[in-house]
Amino acid sequence: MPRYKLTLEYDGSAFAGWQRQANGPSVQAAVEAAIGGFAGHAVSVVGAGRTDAGVHAAGQVAHVDLDRPWPAATIRAATNFHLKPAAVAVLAVEEAASRFHARFSATARVYRYRILNRAAPPVLDRGRVWWLSKPLDADAMAAAARLLVGHHDFSAFRAALCQARSPVRTLDALAVRRVGDEIWLEARARSFLHNQVRIITGTLKEIGEGRATPERISAALASGRRELAGPTAPAAGLCLMAVLYPRSDCEPASIKPAGDRADDQADDDIEDDDAGRHDA
Amino acid sequence: MPRYKLTLEYDGSAFAGWQRQANGPSVQAAVEAAIGGFAGHAVSVVGAGRTDAGVHAAGQVAHVDLDRPWPAATIRAATNFHLKPAAVAVLAVEEAASRFHARFSATARVYRYRILNRAAPPVLDRGRVWWLSKPLDADAMAAAARLLVGHHDFSAFRAALCQARSPVRTLDALAVRRVGDEIWLEARARSFLHNQVRIITGTLKEIGEGRATPERISAALASGRRELAGPTAPAAGLCLMAVLYPRSDCEPASIKPAGDRADDQADDDIEDDDAGRHDA
Repeated sequence: MPRYKLTLEYDGSAFAGWQRQANGPSVQAAVEAAIGGFAGHAVSVVGAGRTDAGVHAAGQVAHVDLDRPWPAATIRAATNFHLKPAAVAVLAVEEAASRFHARFSATARVYRYRILNRAAPPVLDRGRVWWLSKPLDADAMAAAARLLVGHHDFSAFRAALCQARSPVRTLDALAVRRVGDEIWLEARARSFLHNQVRIITGTLKEIGEGRATPERISAALASGRRELAGPTAPAAGLCLMAVLYPRSDCEPASIKPAGDRADDQADDDIEDDDAGRHDA
Repeated sequence: MPRYKLTLEYDGSAFAGWQRQANGPSVQAAVEAAIGGFAGHAVSVVGAGRTDAGVHAAGQVAHVDLDRPWPAATIRAATNFHLKPAAVAVLAVEEAASRFHARFSATARVYRYRILNRAAPPVLDRGRVWWLSKPLDADAMAAAARLLVGHHDFSAFRAALCQARSPVRTLDALAVRRVGDEIWLEARARSFLHNQVRIITGTLKEIGEGRATPERISAALASGRRELAGPTAPAAGLCLMAVLYPRSDCEPASIKPAGDRADDQADDDIEDDDAGRHDA
């Protein structure tokens, strides 16, 4: 059973989320059907992150096992052919070691949240941004963002239905910058809690509006109370940009027994077994 | 009759082009209806460039005369309100001098053509790029592009139905560069012939593929024969990025009598009176 690593782009607005489900089209089911269509057998596609409905990806990673080896370029072309006209494409296919696991081998996920901050509504980027017409203070948002970086209990920054066992995560980076008339928030962590990036964005938005001070961040972190954080930003502005792995993909990090792991990694395991969909 | 300068963004795929016409929705008619809707009288909106069906704009400029003064922010908000759900937005409104003319006062138009150059088809940028899966030599394209810059007879680089009196234009700049897995062509000129940027793009694409040499450019320019240039690139990859005016918009360049003008400017006048749609 050769294993392949897939890098995927998709338009989340066309799907009820990454994960296969009864009530709506999922990216996972679309990719499984397309690969099964040319491979001639049912396949299971495992994604690095289970993005919610409406959340996009420019660099989702998944793995799949096929019953015989295929040239990587053939898998890419044949899958893209069978995916049409779904709003998903396979950007790259690489052979992977059998111990490579799209979810467990990942050392970092990178998300970008795009805010369009101008008076006029979006046209060319409709469905890709959160439109906020009031001018935001991006510098204040960037300064407040620095309070969130590091190892924290993010209880205030996760959805009520988040099923992760531990609310502790290590946010490796959280950059806020202006790009033309947009403000981009870029977050990197080994793993995220459900809606973590969207709640962080909603909180920083209130700081950018001058409706909250950076102390709100500290208070939310310290108390763990969801109501001290801001609203959950809309899904459409969020995009999974990249998933990072140690060294080459053919030499993924071996999976250690759960007892040896840090909170972040252990939670990932728990989450993989539950029915929840996890998304930043 | 106070005059206002409008800056517009639109998704060209939703329209049969900029110009008002019988057989299909036009951007011009949508904007005229929206402004008329709040101003309470019929208006005529004059655009700087008449983009073809499918061509986008991130910075089209137009002017309109209203029967009484309105705050610029009110015009913007009311027009955007009335435009919904059309794929057009007014980005900015400024008061302009009565001699300001969106078309004749313009000193430069800037177009961007986006080629997506990767194996996988576009998903997030579907309808915004020309997808070319074969790797293109962007350096060769950039070198060949330099042959087109300057004052030339562009007969080989205009549509058969181009109605400009003179095929002579001055291409001020033509940059070709890689941006991630895209190649961007950015062209700046006082005015363009019909399909000029798209035919230039189609020609440079053949050079990027190694199917034509830069000598093809020289031969096409010298002969004026359309068949020596490449195919007309699809409309979806093209976007009117900006229209430039001298000094402040309240001090537009006065319109000189036609006899005093260079070829480029004189043709603009001719084109404004004819029925053709002009687009780069």
